[in-house]
Amino acid sequence: MESRKIEVALSTTLFPLFEIEPKVVVVIDVLRATTSICTALANGAEAVIPVASRDEARAMREKGYLVASERDGQRLDFAHFGNSPGEFTPSRVGGQQVVYCTTNGTKAITSAGRARAVLIGAFVNLSALVEHIAREQQGDVLFYCSGWKGHFNLEDTLLAGAAASRLLALGGFETGCDATQAAIDLWRLAEPDLPAYAERFAHRHRLARVGLIDSFEDCLHIDRYSVVPQHVAGRILPAPLHMG
Amino acid sequence: MESRKIEVALSTTLFPLFEIEPKVVVVIDVLRATTSICTALANGAEAVIPVASRDEARAMREKGYLVASERDGQRLDFAHFGNSPGEFTPSRVGGQQVVYCTTNGTKAITSAGRARAVLIGAFVNLSALVEHIAREQQGDVLFYCSGWKGHFNLEDTLLAGAAASRLLALGGFETGCDATQAAIDLWRLAEPDLPAYAERFAHRHRLARVGLIDSFEDCLHIDRYSVVPQHVAGRILPAPLHMG
Repeated sequence: MESRKIEVALSTTLFPLFEIEPKVVVVIDVLRATTSICTALANGAEAVIPVASRDEARAMREKGYLVASERDGQRLDFAHFGNSPGEFTPSRVGGQQVVYCTTNGTKAITSAGRARAVLIGAFVNLSALVEHIAREQQGDVLFYCSGWKGHFNLEDTLLAGAAASRLLALGGFETGCDATQAAIDLWRLAEPDLPAYAERFAHRHRLARVGLIDSFEDCLHIDRYSVVPQHVAGRILPAPLHMG
Repeated sequence: MESRKIEVALSTTLFPLFEIEPKVVVVIDVLRATTSICTALANGAEAVIPVASRDEARAMREKGYLVASERDGQRLDFAHFGNSPGEFTPSRVGGQQVVYCTTNGTKAITSAGRARAVLIGAFVNLSALVEHIAREQQGDVLFYCSGWKGHFNLEDTLLAGAAASRLLALGGFETGCDATQAAIDLWRLAEPDLPAYAERFAHRHRLARVGLIDSFEDCLHIDRYSVVPQHVAGRILPAPLHMG
């Protein structure tokens, strides 16, 4: 059987260079969108509905949805709570459809729409994600780092490297992509002490400036959850399991 | 005095996200354009004239210029020689203006045209480049990796990391850019044995397939030359020294 190829798109700017239709695309926005989405579903939300603009989020609020939305670290006046993973508690989100407003993350999720499958990855669901890709999905894999305003960032690249190195170790996968190689090598440097390595992240300092540094710790918590969110037709749901 | 900022654009696709006017831009295309340009000037060429298309190269040939141009590893029929650094011997290029046809490299060099200064970097002139930036240039520094067809590549990123880490060690420089941090970390992994690390480069395998692997070794030869090429008005010349 042919090996499944692994690639990494290091930012939204690079993503259009990749063919996506036949691939499993894993959207990554560690700080904080994809971590928050995993948290919401793990804590019992029925679905997460990603939207890109405040206006869309406000309109959904008026329709009666639960809405998470903030700007520059401040909850927006019409929103029920902000974007940090710690906001998505079981008592708030259990059984609810949660509208999540995030510019980078939503852009990444919707632009991956033509892929064979669109999954959501973060450190909090790393092992579950890897297992799901290997066992429940077929085809080549593209890790799609949301980055920051079109730029490369370290945290999304590290998660891509962590997942790619685990898939390669399982066998049945290969890569010929320099970005994947770089992500794996950076992960090898970071893995022995991720919190120490994370001191380098430019976005860590941005979050600290707006008082969201506690949210940062939540985003580096490896394997806290076993959910693998999947984007289907505008909604993000736990990926179905096909028990063998 | 304020520290000079260092940034890295990891590919041509990412370059438009950066402000360039007030900066020193260092164009990097290790395999092989910027290595060949350094070689040509170090071996006595009066200037290198980069062109992006075969048609331009052919037209320059008809005007009497010496022309280096190849496609898929084969010298083009109208060219005097190919694009590998080893072709630019003193007997061929001494005293000549050499037209060099390269898609990635030329695109990068010309798109950097509005910068305060446009320099050419490669492993072969690493120390000279760093010294020149620190002593002869002012302003912030943007390393511009040409990459491969818009994508990230390892070899250009490593050279950016090598130069950035040396500048930071000199003092008077700083970075808050995740791409710079990643480049520096990758260089730390590669530096102890660059030829071994280079086995990972996807482009190494492409060159090997077309029989250009000897050119690869030339491109990793650190500090072979002391020239710092500078692009000015369509021509690349040795940067002038302002002896203090």
